[in-house]
Amino acid sequence: MDWIAADWGTTHLQLWEMEADGTVLNTMLSDQGMGVLLPEDYEPTLLGLLRNRLPTDRTTPVIACGMVGARQGWIEAPYAPVPAAPPSAAIAVRPKLRDPRLAVHVLPGMSQASPADVMRGEEVRISGVLAEEPDFDGIVCLPGLHTIWAQISAGEVVSFRTFMTAELVKLLSTQSVLRLSVGQEGWDEAEFQAGLDRGLSTPAALASDAFRLRAEALLDDLPSEAARARLWGLLIGVELAAAKPYWLGQAVRIVGVEDPVKLYSAALAKQGVQATSRDWEAMTLAGLGAARRTLLERA
Amino acid sequence: MDWIAADWGTTHLQLWEMEADGTVLNTMLSDQGMGVLLPEDYEPTLLGLLRNRLPTDRTTPVIACGMVGARQGWIEAPYAPVPAAPPSAAIAVRPKLRDPRLAVHVLPGMSQASPADVMRGEEVRISGVLAEEPDFDGIVCLPGLHTIWAQISAGEVVSFRTFMTAELVKLLSTQSVLRLSVGQEGWDEAEFQAGLDRGLSTPAALASDAFRLRAEALLDDLPSEAARARLWGLLIGVELAAAKPYWLGQAVRIVGVEDPVKLYSAALAKQGVQATSRDWEAMTLAGLGAARRTLLERA
Repeated sequence: MDWIAADWGTTHLQLWEMEADGTVLNTMLSDQGMGVLLPEDYEPTLLGLLRNRLPTDRTTPVIACGMVGARQGWIEAPYAPVPAAPPSAAIAVRPKLRDPRLAVHVLPGMSQASPADVMRGEEVRISGVLAEEPDFDGIVCLPGLHTIWAQISAGEVVSFRTFMTAELVKLLSTQSVLRLSVGQEGWDEAEFQAGLDRGLSTPAALASDAFRLRAEALLDDLPSEAARARLWGLLIGVELAAAKPYWLGQAVRIVGVEDPVKLYSAALAKQGVQATSRDWEAMTLAGLGAARRTLLERA
Repeated sequence: MDWIAADWGTTHLQLWEMEADGTVLNTMLSDQGMGVLLPEDYEPTLLGLLRNRLPTDRTTPVIACGMVGARQGWIEAPYAPVPAAPPSAAIAVRPKLRDPRLAVHVLPGMSQASPADVMRGEEVRISGVLAEEPDFDGIVCLPGLHTIWAQISAGEVVSFRTFMTAELVKLLSTQSVLRLSVGQEGWDEAEFQAGLDRGLSTPAALASDAFRLRAEALLDDLPSEAARARLWGLLIGVELAAAKPYWLGQAVRIVGVEDPVKLYSAALAKQGVQATSRDWEAMTLAGLGAARRTLLERA
């Protein structure tokens, strides 16, 4: 093992044991996210997962991104303001450790002054896209609980914009009156497409179109998978209406896990934009790997 | 006591002991809403609240509205489709009771075929507005967890439209990442007005403007009461953008409790619409009282 890649978010910690050439030796997933940890818990959490796998004859670097660097995380890694290249290890923050076998480098997130916006973790995936395509000029779209659209030019993040789209779908379908009518599984592609059209053309009607799913379930027995697909379509359609400057006539890379990437790819294709998708894990490792290289160059 | 008015919703039951002339003798509020009751629980719940206050020499009518008449309530009172006058006691549904001292009349809600929509309870408040102003021609706006806009003409509900506005505010401010930045108390009128303008002019940006509250809290120390007021402004602004046919150049009556009525009145006033407000309880009793009169006329 040459180094350790860590994606340490609010709800999860994922670790990859890496060789110098980028080969993944081992991966570990834990539910010990920032949300359940105090600052003094982070080092024991790492050591508990890595146990006796750590080399004892040298210090192994851990390159970490995500909420671990938030004010309420392990140690605050202040946001790098855009425009800027995605943060490298040169501005990572290093918590003090008791165990000499580990050296942890926490990468900062990025911020935008106006309109105010922040990200923590997505900038590493953007760095991964740039590691693959150093001359990329265009848009990186990162769907997750929140979707971030980032404008990339000359190796820098020029501007970005966050949408709470998937979190709204989740809240509406599990916590609101719609939970009685919107399923957590199943799909109806025609309803997704109808929702997309409606959201894009009439975004202001969202709070009314959402309730209509409940009314159609009561009056017309709308199936729960149809309601689910239309709700996703509505919310993504409304997002696309506002994010138009981020995709119209642009080269777009979508970085995420399988299902959301499919939804955004389909939604953009409907608008005539052929986005290229990139795997979330691969871009995370490419981005953390790029930070690992800056560390070596500085050494 | 001549009759009993009952507003039986999902989370609460409110009872009013009424004299024939509309005088309120006594009011009772209970948390025994539809959500926690099985069909066999409703009669004991009523009797438990009324105890030995019921006359024994005659049958006292109870006029009830709300989710008590839903499929999952006491007894289903099928929706009356619009266009139609608000349901009267003539089409109320009567559950069988064991106790001869009570006769319960459950009023139906109203439905709309296209776009699909439903209401249960609000139609009684509309009936109350018509009891006060029989010739009213215009819009009744009923803010609550959901806001309903109803078009009234010739004593009938012609069409209506439901928006999940307050439920979205509640979910975003208590269950989403915004809960860390949006307060449950306090107010900033300038932020409310700014949110209104933004929501009305750029409704598609909602999922992004909402996240901006979190980013401004992190980067600019946006106070939680300012975030709360702007979130309300955004959501009501987006609603007004879609509901424009329901208020532009219309006579509007707003029926609700104090705080939401103030917000909607201020939002409409900003658009040049001077809405008249009506008290929620008074309109409930006027509407249930109108149903009581149809009962007497039929007897």
